[in-house]
Amino acid sequence: MLKLYCAPHTISTVIVTTLNEGVHWEPIRVDMQGGEQLTPEYLAINPKGRVPVLITPQGPLTETGAILEYIGETALPQLVPADPLARAKMREVMYYLASTMHVNHAHMRRGYRWADQQSSFDDMAAKVPETMAGSAAYVNELIAGPLLFGREPTLADFYLYSVARWLEADGVDPTAYPNIMTLHKTMRARPGVAKAHADGFFG
Amino acid sequence: MLKLYCAPHTISTVIVTTLNEGVHWEPIRVDMQGGEQLTPEYLAINPKGRVPVLITPQGPLTETGAILEYIGETALPQLVPADPLARAKMREVMYYLASTMHVNHAHMRRGYRWADQQSSFDDMAAKVPETMAGSAAYVNELIAGPLLFGREPTLADFYLYSVARWLEADGVDPTAYPNIMTLHKTMRARPGVAKAHADGFFG
Repeated sequence: MLKLYCAPHTISTVIVTTLNEGVHWEPIRVDMQGGEQLTPEYLAINPKGRVPVLITPQGPLTETGAILEYIGETALPQLVPADPLARAKMREVMYYLASTMHVNHAHMRRGYRWADQQSSFDDMAAKVPETMAGSAAYVNELIAGPLLFGREPTLADFYLYSVARWLEADGVDPTAYPNIMTLHKTMRARPGVAKAHADGFFG
Repeated sequence: MLKLYCAPHTISTVIVTTLNEGVHWEPIRVDMQGGEQLTPEYLAINPKGRVPVLITPQGPLTETGAILEYIGETALPQLVPADPLARAKMREVMYYLASTMHVNHAHMRRGYRWADQQSSFDDMAAKVPETMAGSAAYVNELIAGPLLFGREPTLADFYLYSVARWLEADGVDPTAYPNIMTLHKTMRARPGVAKAHADGFFG
């Protein structure tokens, strides 16, 4: 059985909601507040000290986008478009979320990754509403409706669902982005997403 | 014929070297120093104002990782491992490069993306040698030798080749990472990589 190292409110919720679509799996909750991700035991599993980590039959796999693709290929092919260009457009969103929107968000509370001074952390945090609003505006235009590529969810919709939930705490009014709101409501109604909420992964 | 919006020294060199493996393509050079990427004409092609953009028969495609996967699927399947877990491990590297190592590098000269004060930019730049050394150490351990997954290159090797070239300018001594040095030398000898150098994409 697949196991997933995960924690509420983190990007690992992307994998939780996706696995809940129909994969037999088991969560291993990591106490991020308690610093469990930085213990020698955890760093032996993932030297990056982050979640998620998927434990596959052949060993650990990290990086949200890579885990999503693995789940899509091995268990949930219905979440991966059949057409090569459609698959590429799905991945275009996934890479944007990983390398730009999630990174923008991380500057709110994790500025220490890229700087050392408190004044820099404050400066970074102050800019997050602007950068996340820019990301929200860009993503909003990508959504065909109700989901990114129409009625059928792809891996990218699960990724976006979790990332878009950060907008409000990042100082952005999500209601200004109607396509994101529609996507969010549509995804929230899926049983696997509802189960992730019921299990406390979104607090 | 595929066209690629690209510029020397940028992450678009990943796509240049990959296309040079055997795809019929044409470069469209973007004058990044002159700010061409922020003109209305360019933003109509890519609202993110970045390179690379691949012009496919069905329209523009952005994000380095997504473009690589598209090229792998449609033209160069020899660069994509056949086994699902091996493919996942390739993607694990690609997502790490996109969301962590490239982002670390970007804090050297592009701190304005995430902050507003000069003091923050200076603080960020000062930390880049540390964060890039951390990324180099992590990646160095992933390399089976001579390339990431042995003798056969994958999409991730092309990605890493370009990113690793930034180490020295980012204040990191690349010779401290012997596996990266071996990968770099091995990739540098490929005709397509040599052509990208001859065409001035690495300055």
